[in-house]
Amino acid sequence: MSFRPAAAIGMPLAEVDTPCLILEMDAFERNLKRLPDSLAGRSIKLRPHAKSHKCPEIAQRQLALGAVGVCCQKVSEAEAMVDGGIGDVLIANEVVGAAKLKSLAALAKRATVKVCADDAGNVHDLDQAARAAGITLDVLVEVDVGAHRCGVAPGIPAATLGTAIAACGNLRFAGLQAYQGAAQHVRKVSDRREAIARAVADVQLTQQLLREAGVACDFVTGAGTGSYMFEAASSVYKELQAGSYIFMDADYARNEWTESGIPQFEHSLFVWTTVMSATTAGRAIVDAGLKASSVDSGMPRVADYSDVEYMKASDEHGVLQLNGSTRFNVGDKLKLIPGHCDPTVNLYDWYVCVRNGRVEALWPITARGAVL
Amino acid sequence: MSFRPAAAIGMPLAEVDTPCLILEMDAFERNLKRLPDSLAGRSIKLRPHAKSHKCPEIAQRQLALGAVGVCCQKVSEAEAMVDGGIGDVLIANEVVGAAKLKSLAALAKRATVKVCADDAGNVHDLDQAARAAGITLDVLVEVDVGAHRCGVAPGIPAATLGTAIAACGNLRFAGLQAYQGAAQHVRKVSDRREAIARAVADVQLTQQLLREAGVACDFVTGAGTGSYMFEAASSVYKELQAGSYIFMDADYARNEWTESGIPQFEHSLFVWTTVMSATTAGRAIVDAGLKASSVDSGMPRVADYSDVEYMKASDEHGVLQLNGSTRFNVGDKLKLIPGHCDPTVNLYDWYVCVRNGRVEALWPITARGAVL
Repeated sequence: MSFRPAAAIGMPLAEVDTPCLILEMDAFERNLKRLPDSLAGRSIKLRPHAKSHKCPEIAQRQLALGAVGVCCQKVSEAEAMVDGGIGDVLIANEVVGAAKLKSLAALAKRATVKVCADDAGNVHDLDQAARAAGITLDVLVEVDVGAHRCGVAPGIPAATLGTAIAACGNLRFAGLQAYQGAAQHVRKVSDRREAIARAVADVQLTQQLLREAGVACDFVTGAGTGSYMFEAASSVYKELQAGSYIFMDADYARNEWTESGIPQFEHSLFVWTTVMSATTAGRAIVDAGLKASSVDSGMPRVADYSDVEYMKASDEHGVLQLNGSTRFNVGDKLKLIPGHCDPTVNLYDWYVCVRNGRVEALWPITARGAVL
Repeated sequence: MSFRPAAAIGMPLAEVDTPCLILEMDAFERNLKRLPDSLAGRSIKLRPHAKSHKCPEIAQRQLALGAVGVCCQKVSEAEAMVDGGIGDVLIANEVVGAAKLKSLAALAKRATVKVCADDAGNVHDLDQAARAAGITLDVLVEVDVGAHRCGVAPGIPAATLGTAIAACGNLRFAGLQAYQGAAQHVRKVSDRREAIARAVADVQLTQQLLREAGVACDFVTGAGTGSYMFEAASSVYKELQAGSYIFMDADYARNEWTESGIPQFEHSLFVWTTVMSATTAGRAIVDAGLKASSVDSGMPRVADYSDVEYMKASDEHGVLQLNGSTRFNVGDKLKLIPGHCDPTVNLYDWYVCVRNGRVEALWPITARGAVL
């Protein structure tokens, strides 16, 4: 059920079939290096989130530049990474249900695996699953530091759960997951900085209570592409989980970045698309719609043409509005910048890796659809 | 790169892993039969759109109830249908580019295949591809009957293109594709009825001009779940292309249906999801987010709980707001009604087919990701 790639190695980009996912390798490699470079001189470690790329080829390149492992959101995603040669995975998420807990414990036998929890009953289930597998499992407490999604409240609730984990015979309390997801796309740098300052205070309060309870808690992990320099500067966080920096989607590009200390990442990920209809002045239809680019964070942007706007997506079509002098003919190809990289990548089986206008490699997106 | 299904045959639904796509077979089979039943006594034919389900198992069941074939949007989707035993496919869309035209011509050698066009250059390319393959290819003119997407304007432009197709040595002019996509989700029945009346007039004008040019044009195809009874009553349309009727998503359910003549289709397609976090009063987090349910037409609805609302989706999480007395514990499972069935189906590799609370079958979604 995996489709043939849209390209062959060596093919000129102009011949690559559409729609497909293009990775511009020069920009991608610059992004890949920019983030670790921006942390030079700091003792903090990078553990990029693999939910963005779902591709061991990319994870391997992140590790080669110093990353200590990857984050995943799902056990099946973590399995795809371990199968792809990644030996150290943090599941930065809760894992619930007997089938998944069994898979998690099995995975922890063949790789370094940590997982998060925010519920006492789930901690009990994790302990049972670890015991059944004959392992000791590393478990972090997820703290809600402002995202209001998963996570226990900072302070007493988080410290209480950490203490409970430490008391389990088959679990090791491994620290705090403190990801401020809601801050990542807040546009103003000062607002993001303040949100992370509050998260840091939440973490410190929780650490103090744990210390008072006699539970060591030096390890804190979190951060995304929108805020990571603030967590890095806190001296509280020990690992960073940024993922989107390698691609830089249209929604992240709407953030302000000046004076954030975060380098300017470039768009490296594109949907390659063909004009399939051009019957009406001022309009062109491309062959990339909802099944080719996720629109949850806004429509894709049209690369290279400032006077062309992607207005509307239906299942297999995108409607371009031509606001200036640009005209397209049927068969013309162009690049779209996805609104949101993660769910767009999850639509495809392959990256078509392009350098200097030629296909250099095809990388399988082995964790595509890994939702379990 | 295809993942293990979330279930095994015979498994109770409560044990099925999440998130996954559930097909409630009783409701599905009633929907499957309701549409052809509603056409009893009419001479119009049904050719359901396979872009909704992407599954030959479902297409076969539509054919068993009288459908004459299926529609597809993409050549690769059509290939998956033909590989799955479907012998008659209308690509209800334009096919552009050398690679796709070659695949299209090859497919037309092993199945009955028709395709649409709205551009004279593309008609030339279709003729060349048919000649290279040694076949005669059936080509319809797509007429823009109000959707303002692909299609030439009705009247002279459409008749001119039809005449051009008829003049090509390796093409056969096969009629008009006249799908009023923009009308399908217009809420009021009277507005949908009027939109289709205008489409019918557009078609009739085009047919008349073709007749005057000496080109026969009896075959007209179009319609969707939201309007098909109006096209059926027109006596102009010969085939109907409805697809979503088998599933009935949340957005279609917002349409008014009374007095449309269209039967009440039931929700049969669900995303099965687990409550993975419940740390805060009034909120629960489920494990189905953007990679489990497309939000392009609104958030999914929570089935069976009228006081629970799915408020927000991130990549792997959904935030439920508990507005009444319903409370969830970590591990509870529930059903979501997708906002839009087509792009949601395209996220999954399997339908988990459920009857009376047990898994009856697992059907592969073989055309998932078939975007080329």
